[in-house]
This record gives sequence, C-alpha cells and structure tokens, in this order.
Amino acid sequence: MSNPLRVGLAGLGTVGASVIKLLERQSTALASRTGRAIAIAAVSARERGRERGVDIAGFQWFDDPVAMAQSADIDLFVELMGGDEGPARASVEAALGAGKSVVTANKALLAKHGMSLATLAEKQKVALAFEASVAGGIPIVKTLREGLAGNEIRRVYGILNGTCNYILSRMELEKLSFEQCLREAQRLGYAEADPTFDIGGFDSAHKLAILTSLAFGAAVDAEAIHVEGIQSISLADLEAADELGYRIKLLGVAERSEHGIEQRVHPTMVAKSSAIAQVMGVTNAVTIDADAVKELTLVGPGAGGEATASAVVADIADIARGIRSAPFGLPVALLGHVARLPMQRHEGGYYIRLCVHDRPGAAAAIATRMAERQISLESIMQKGRGGRGVSTGAPVPVILITYATSETTIREALEAVVKDGYIAERPQVIRIERD
Amino acid sequence: MSNPLRVGLAGLGTVGASVIKLLERQSTALASRTGRAIAIAAVSARERGRERGVDIAGFQWFDDPVAMAQSADIDLFVELMGGDEGPARASVEAALGAGKSVVTANKALLAKHGMSLATLAEKQKVALAFEASVAGGIPIVKTLREGLAGNEIRRVYGILNGTCNYILSRMELEKLSFEQCLREAQRLGYAEADPTFDIGGFDSAHKLAILTSLAFGAAVDAEAIHVEGIQSISLADLEAADELGYRIKLLGVAERSEHGIEQRVHPTMVAKSSAIAQVMGVTNAVTIDADAVKELTLVGPGAGGEATASAVVADIADIARGIRSAPFGLPVALLGHVARLPMQRHEGGYYIRLCVHDRPGAAAAIATRMAERQISLESIMQKGRGGRGVSTGAPVPVILITYATSETTIREALEAVVKDGYIAERPQVIRIERD
Repeated sequence: MSNPLRVGLAGLGTVGASVIKLLERQSTALASRTGRAIAIAAVSARERGRERGVDIAGFQWFDDPVAMAQSADIDLFVELMGGDEGPARASVEAALGAGKSVVTANKALLAKHGMSLATLAEKQKVALAFEASVAGGIPIVKTLREGLAGNEIRRVYGILNGTCNYILSRMELEKLSFEQCLREAQRLGYAEADPTFDIGGFDSAHKLAILTSLAFGAAVDAEAIHVEGIQSISLADLEAADELGYRIKLLGVAERSEHGIEQRVHPTMVAKSSAIAQVMGVTNAVTIDADAVKELTLVGPGAGGEATASAVVADIADIARGIRSAPFGLPVALLGHVARLPMQRHEGGYYIRLCVHDRPGAAAAIATRMAERQISLESIMQKGRGGRGVSTGAPVPVILITYATSETTIREALEAVVKDGYIAERPQVIRIERD
Repeated sequence: MSNPLRVGLAGLGTVGASVIKLLERQSTALASRTGRAIAIAAVSARERGRERGVDIAGFQWFDDPVAMAQSADIDLFVELMGGDEGPARASVEAALGAGKSVVTANKALLAKHGMSLATLAEKQKVALAFEASVAGGIPIVKTLREGLAGNEIRRVYGILNGTCNYILSRMELEKLSFEQCLREAQRLGYAEADPTFDIGGFDSAHKLAILTSLAFGAAVDAEAIHVEGIQSISLADLEAADELGYRIKLLGVAERSEHGIEQRVHPTMVAKSSAIAQVMGVTNAVTIDADAVKELTLVGPGAGGEATASAVVADIADIARGIRSAPFGLPVALLGHVARLPMQRHEGGYYIRLCVHDRPGAAAAIATRMAERQISLESIMQKGRGGRGVSTGAPVPVILITYATSETTIREALEAVVKDGYIAERPQVIRIERD
C-alpha cells in the first residue's frame, strides 16, 4: 500500500465536521477501496476552540488556510469555507499553485472562477473535484463527467435548491402562504436569516452554471443565466396548477439548441405525472435528457452535513485512487464558448394568471391580444364568484395556458392587455417545462 | 495523446450495433474527454453477413471470439454475447488471461462467475467493468463503487426488470389481466417468446447478486437469493393495493442487518407516495439507503440498445482514461463471505388476500389464528357482495395488512387458517417494503 493521502481541511462547519467523522468511520473501508490510507493531517477554521462534536486535537492547526494549502504536510486541500473571493479563492489557488489536488463544495467560487481554477489545475496536473458543489449528496458531477461519457446531452434540469422546494411543497400541501412557509423554513434551519440567496434563485443559478459546463462541454458562464426566484408564487398559482395537472417547482434548466445554450432558473410548471414533480421537501433532483440514455433522473438530499460530506469523501476517494478527470469533463482549451441565448428567445408554453376587472368585453379583449400575436391557447379558466349572476366589476382571476410561443411574444401580448386597462394586478407568468 | 485504445467487440446484436454507432458518433468528444482515441479494431459474431444497420467492413473479423480476445490487435475486449458459459465465459477468461481489460453487459456470467473473473482481472492488473449488466443505462455500478465510497450502505432495492414493471403498470392502469399484458409485452418486443427468465424474477436476481456485492463488499452469491416472480399477481391484488395506498412492484431487495444479508426478489407493496412507486413502464429504478447520504434514487432506462450501449461506452471511456477500480469495489480477498439470511428469517409487514367461504365464524377464526401468533393487524378489509344482506356461503375476498412479523410466523398462521377450512383458494401473500 502507498503512503497515506494527507488531507488538509479548511472550514469546520457542519460539513467539515461531518467529513472528519465520515473519514474516521470509514477509514478501513476507504483504504481497502482505494488502496491507500486517507488521513486528515491538518485543519483550519476561523475559531480554533469552538465545540464541533469532533476532536481536532490530533491534527495540525493553521490559522491561515493559505499557509495550510501550501504546507508540505498535506497532499490534498479540502475547501469548505465558502465565498467566491477571500480566503476560499486564495487558498484554493495556493493549493493548486503548490501542486496539490483540491476538493471543494464551493459552488459560488466555481461559478465565478471555475475556468481559471480548472486551467491552473490542468497546468499543475492535479485534480480539482467538486461533487459536493451541486445537489449535495447526489453524484451528478460524476454522472455527467464519467457515467454519460458516450452521450450527447440535450437538456439538464433539476430542483437544485432544497429551501425553495421545501417552501413550495409546504405551500401546496398545507395551503399556507409564502411568508408562513419561509418563516417555518428559517425556524427549521432550512433557510438563512437573509434568505435572498436561496429564494431569489441565485444558489440554483450557481449550480446550474456548473451543470451546464459539464453537460455541454462549454465554459462556465454564470452571468448568462436568467434568474427568477419564488417570491411571487402565490397559493392561487399553486391551486390553479393543481387543477390543471401541474406542480410548481423552482427549476434550473440548461438546454442546447441549434442556436446556442439556454440557461434559466425560474418557477416552472411541471406535469404532476413527471418524475421531477414527485420530489417534495428539501430533496433535490436532476434529470438529464441525452441521445443514448434518453432520460435519467437522480433524486437525493441536496444539503445537510452528512450528505454533502458523502460527496466530499467520494471525491477524496477518487483522488486517493489516482483518478484525475478534467474538472469540467474536457480540457479547458476545448470547452466551447457557445452562444448563450437570451431569455427573450425562449420558446415554450406559458401559464398566465390575470386578475381581470369583471367588465363586459374583458375576456374578448384578452383573447384578441393573444390572437393578434398567433398565440394559441391550450386552455382558459375563469373562476366565477359564485352564483350572484351579475357582473360586479370586482376583479376575477382568469388563467390561460398557451401552446409554445416565444418569451418576447408573450411579453408583448401581456403589455397590450395591461394597456387595455382590464387588468387589476401585474400578470403572473410561469413557464411550462415539458418532460 | 497516447496510442488509440483498440476495442474488440464480440456480439453484434442490438446492443453491439449501438455500441459501434455511439463510438463513431462520439469519437471526437470521447477522445477529448479521455485523452485517447477509441477505435474498434475487430468484431466477432455468429453470422458475419447479417444486416445490422452498421458497417463492419472496416473491422477485422473473427469467427472465434476466443481468438479475438487473445489477439495482439486489440487492447480491450467487449463481451456482448450473453450466456453464463460457452463462448462468453471462454472469451472473457481468455481476454483477462491475455492481460486485456474486459467490458461486459453479461449479468448471468457475473452472477455465476463474478468472483473467479474478478480474481483473474486483479491478478492480471486489468479492468473488468460491467456497468451495463445492471439496470441498463443507469450508472448504478459507478455510483455504488465510487460515488458512495464514503457510505455504509444499509439497503439497496429496485425495479430491475423492465418487462415485469411494464406488465404490472399496464395491469394497474388499464385493468387488464396478467396474460393480456404479457402478450402485449411480447408483441412490443419487451418480453421474450419464453418469458420465464424475466417474469419469474431470475433476471432481477442476477442483477441483485451484483448490486449486493457492490453495496456490501460481499462475495457474489446468486444462489442465496429468494426468488418469486409476478405470475401470481392478479387484478384483485392491484386493486386492493390501490385502495390501501400501495402499488405492486417486482423488487430486488438486498438488506444488511446484524445477522447477515437478506437478498430477495418478489412482488412487493410499496407506498404510492414513494419514489419507486412512481416508476411506470419499462423504466428501472434503484434506491440506496446509506448512513451518510440517507436515500438516493436513480431512475432511467433498464434496457434497449442505445441505453445499454451508453453504459458500455462509459466503461470503455473509463478504461481509456486509465481508471481501474476493483471490479466489485474491494479486492476479492477482502470481499466478505457474510451470512445470507434465509427467507424464513425475513421480518416485515404483509399483505394477505384470502378467498373466504362466507360462513359464520370465518372472520373470527382467521383473526384468532393471527392473534395466536402475536401477529398484529394494521387493517382488515372485507368486500361485501352488495346489499343482499344474507350470507350465501360463496367465497368473498378478505384482505389483511399486518404489522411487522416474520415470514415463518405468517406462513404458520396461514397454514392453520387453511386447515380450518374457511379458505377457497391458496392465500395470496405479498410483502410490504417500507421506504
């Protein structure tokens, strides 16, 4: 058996502590599987003395993660600090620069600096592994990078943020408001005190940027992602979705067409019968459409200390085995700079909820505005207000489901509808994703 | 770039032809991903001239796959002939013996000779890869062998046979008989003319034997699997399952307890809300319960030329990259010879459908037989025959759902019930699997 692989671990939060526990618990099995003992040699965190449920007294301590990253006492640097600049970036660059492989769970860092870090790893002939950065414990990076090596991928999409899926699931199942469910998510530790990053869709976007690169052999381009969060989703939308045979999920979708790559994060109507619609609560799921395998779906925990640590340890084990794939599947020079399609070019079906002043001619005017732009309606649903038989002029909900049209067309039509003055509120627009 | 990896392909059926097409279609991408060109150098099949939709004129032809396996003109032998003895076994042994890596989709061969082949591969320091042997295009072997390296797995279970799942799905959705659905499956090419191997559960058992070894680091032991097929499942069972909140799936289940490993293939009641229950038609799915990742489910195509070829090509790409893991995750000497639990030791809930002569005292007698053996009933459902208000003595269905008990206990209780003479038919017993 070779020398032990000496790991330096920076960041001792929930995931860091779980990595220490897992490596200890599985040390014999890991050595047998990889042919090499794996040993934590050094650790670094902001505070040395904090209680973490793991004993770090046996490891060399570094106040400065950059110093640890460059230390001759470690072979592999594991970055679990987070943040797209600062110590995380500096120490990962230092480790790669010093010729050490890196394992990280840091999606923000990869979304922003993935290309320069992969270039550095390649130059130094070391591994840069990040299974834990997307969808927690689900081995989606390995699946895209190795498991589907013979496929041309057409689309990858998924539920990439457990907080949002928890909130949408609870709203739907318990008929609660967005605000109530958000507070509940915060109470349970599923959402941060400032939840913007999760519910605004930005966390999903970071993960989608990484998936897009792996799936399509394209350079990471997080800036090109169209991002909408779930703040505007109301119970009325969830109930209408239910009646129409849909569920609403915050999806990250990356799709390749002849014109380029579309990357978008937004609330999405998915058929209730689809695999992705079954995924409730904090669970994540990713579906891949590819030419050979057709459709493959992976469902599992998207967060949590142990689940994320499972992915970190799998990366460490691969490095112990001597496996070193190109970080994004292809050498950086071969990653394409493919055109990213703006959201206006998106084509698909739409769910539109309008709050219409109940006046004669309203429905006709809306239908006319749609027809003028060749938008075909799959269904139209107007909720009565129950048996009074007279128009009161008070707003009523009208729900439209369109056949495929373009984002530009639908926006123009809705602008015209708004101008006509029949609408009491800003129209709600949710895109429909076909499986 | 290194020398091309020269592939010899034995077996040119649907999967073999698809492998040729995929390797050609993806040749540039594969060379970029793996750093090495992959080229088919030689092929072998029973009939040279048959029309296969692919041009094999450019490849060296071998009548004898064993000769090809040993040829100096190939680096890697791909076995797609099938069969657990004969040419498949002889040529795989010949290739490994000649120091060539092997990729195979042959579950029967691995279930029977997996240990001796892995020993040979290890001795020769070559790869023996078989992603395509279990669940077609789903990368479950890689996930167990590499993706979950840091986990201790408690249970792995899944829908491993598309034919059975197709038949059960159609029976349920269209209220058709088993025989009708089997004929339909045969017409569509989902079932063989002699369907015993699929519907009897034997195909699932071969796959389960491989999964068990990978999940638990244990030697393959297909003989120890308890196997029941779906022939006895009736519409009455599917309808009762539906009313009780379950679906019936043919599952392969391997579970580790303190006493040993349980391996079983049988029709199973799964909660309608579970991920596995959503899987309809020819699709396969595998769920893994493990200590760190908790629950992970992979859903995808379990058969078909292109999907299976996707798995074969992923294995070829790994070998081109120089990845060589122990075939069953651990060196053969470290694979445990863990006790396999006989089915009598199984503990779980049971669904029991009895066809009871409608005579006074029948229900009381059945309940007594259960109570005598401390079997607790979660529910009992007796279907009336509609409003006549008199007992006619004709048989009526009685359905029992038990809490956890042992296989031995339930069999003894049912034997006593049968002896009491109230039962018109052999009791139907279906085990319940909790998610």
